[in-house]
Amino acid sequence: MRQAAVTPDMPRFEPKDPDYLRAATAIFDGQQAMRSFGISIVRLAAGEVELSMPYSLNWTQQNGFVHAGVISAGLDTACGIAAATLMPPGCDILTVEFKTNLLAPARGERFAFRARVVRPGRRLTVCEASAFAQAGGVEGLIATMTGTLMALKRREPANPQDRAAAAT
Amino acid sequence: MRQAAVTPDMPRFEPKDPDYLRAATAIFDGQQAMRSFGISIVRLAAGEVELSMPYSLNWTQQNGFVHAGVISAGLDTACGIAAATLMPPGCDILTVEFKTNLLAPARGERFAFRARVVRPGRRLTVCEASAFAQAGGVEGLIATMTGTLMALKRREPANPQDRAAAAT
Amino acid sequence: MRQAAVTPDMPRFEPKDPDYLRAATAIFDGQQAMRSFGISIVRLAAGEVELSMPYSLNWTQQNGFVHAGVISAGLDTACGIAAATLMPPGCDILTVEFKTNLLAPARGERFAFRARVVRPGRRLTVCEASAFAQAGGVEGLIATMTGTLMALKRREPANPQDRAAAAT
Amino acid sequence: MRQAAVTPDMPRFEPKDPDYLRAATAIFDGQQAMRSFGISIVRLAAGEVELSMPYSLNWTQQNGFVHAGVISAGLDTACGIAAATLMPPGCDILTVEFKTNLLAPARGERFAFRARVVRPGRRLTVCEASAFAQAGGVEGLIATMTGTLMALKRREPANPQDRAAAAT
Repeated sequence: MRQAAVTPDMPRFEPKDPDYLRAATAIFDGQQAMRSFGISIVRLAAGEVELSMPYSLNWTQQNGFVHAGVISAGLDTACGIAAATLMPPGCDILTVEFKTNLLAPARGERFAFRARVVRPGRRLTVCEASAFAQAGGVEGLIATMTGTLMALKRREPANPQDRAAAAT
Repeated sequence: MRQAAVTPDMPRFEPKDPDYLRAATAIFDGQQAMRSFGISIVRLAAGEVELSMPYSLNWTQQNGFVHAGVISAGLDTACGIAAATLMPPGCDILTVEFKTNLLAPARGERFAFRARVVRPGRRLTVCEASAFAQAGGVEGLIATMTGTLMALKRREPANPQDRAAAAT
Repeated sequence: MRQAAVTPDMPRFEPKDPDYLRAATAIFDGQQAMRSFGISIVRLAAGEVELSMPYSLNWTQQNGFVHAGVISAGLDTACGIAAATLMPPGCDILTVEFKTNLLAPARGERFAFRARVVRPGRRLTVCEASAFAQAGGVEGLIATMTGTLMALKRREPANPQDRAAAAT
Repeated sequence: MRQAAVTPDMPRFEPKDPDYLRAATAIFDGQQAMRSFGISIVRLAAGEVELSMPYSLNWTQQNGFVHAGVISAGLDTACGIAAATLMPPGCDILTVEFKTNLLAPARGERFAFRARVVRPGRRLTVCEASAFAQAGGVEGLIATMTGTLMALKRREPANPQDRAAAAT
């Protein structure tokens, strides 16, 4: 019997949208929050993505570490963009729920958010993501996320209210 | 038999620190991220808190709704401050993990984050929080969080590195 | 402005299936696992349910408390049955994900699992549930769950494989 | 810079208890629920474990798939035993919380539950686990869990009530 490891091998996914890199990037670029946090895409492929964010005092909690909510923002968008690469054309992506474990203080020069699709579905996609703090040329795992995302057919003309109402 | 409701009644908690309102407020005030998001405390009591945040384009995702990570930041700090009101004197609070369900698009004029302690513990405290969007005089539930937080004895002189190392 | 409490008031739900009590009960009765655990329905209404389970050594962990997985089984079915009361006719219900916090040891004579719908949706329903240990006429909160469930149209003739394939 | 994958490499852990295999096995053997479900250990190493369970009609939900709570029982115990291998001598392990995503129907001849420690701590350990359905010589991922576990010093003479009270 073929045995999967504790952590299953990265499955290979076949994008349904030939223009999936552009479609996923467009969703990312539409998130003003990413610009505000200084988060950018550093790697993008079918079913996976890596984002990067510089440290900033603006996002700190009481000990000078980056706030768990901001780490969650990076992880959540990473999950959403990874999921978006596998959607059919003309879809938007919404987060249904996520769970974050904070494993170590978020201190460092930069932070990497790496997500991959664990299970793509017609409607629901499950992703896993990890956040790493980078400093002095080394990096350490600081947080993990498991998230459920929902693909949502865009209706034209685009109307956020309608799309939101259709989401559930 | 006394029967609890589906959602247990709000338990009454006895703060261990007579100066608990000041201690919890000091932790909140130390979070630069809260200032950046424009989040403020509007109500604070033993084991519960309400925070408020205005809508801003700065924190939006691709549809103009507030990003789930920023909603999580408000919910997470609400959980932390609620937990902080019940800690012994001289403690700091760290988030161990949280889980967020996004129930409706985060659009509105303002957002309320209400948290309460569900189970206080010597080390670990479990909190529940809800986020509401407010617009035109009405409000609607948009997200829920369950979070686990850890109280951590401060050592003097305060040293974030040491405290973080002691946390786990 | 109407203000919701930290925990929102129990919303009043309008069942879509006039025969919702029978439909939800039929799903419960179809779960052999519930019979194995000795779990029964003690209250059922639109959007909420209470289940009851006797203590048994069969389900214990190393300290004689009921295993967290068995507590999760009761909480998960409670969420599913609560969600099932609000589905259109002819639907099945599947769990997408859940999150459980264990708050106190599961020891007692009986256990109550109380769930309610927090947000019903066309496809996805979010429920919250609490588990209580009952002994000597009193009860205490031992665990909470937040779960996401998916309604799934039954196709005839019923075929579990097809339905499962259609679920995602 | 050394780059971790999306899913971090399996870290190598140094057990604190030279007799860690026996200690972890003793906790497993103390769980009557594992015997009731027919779950056994098929592999055990520092920071990781694999459990196996045969399919049984006794644990099914309404479509004949294994109930999500029973899958959670296997995943939760796998997390606990993985964590137990890295505890100091004389400790017990309790689950603080876990989160499960159900990815595919739990149908098969057998089920494998594989867990590994993601972050060991003095008090809290975070584990990840995956459940696989096995049938006809192939296996497929059906569920994932992230769990937080707490090590708890045993006091002599062992007294479950006291240990439980000390846990929080």
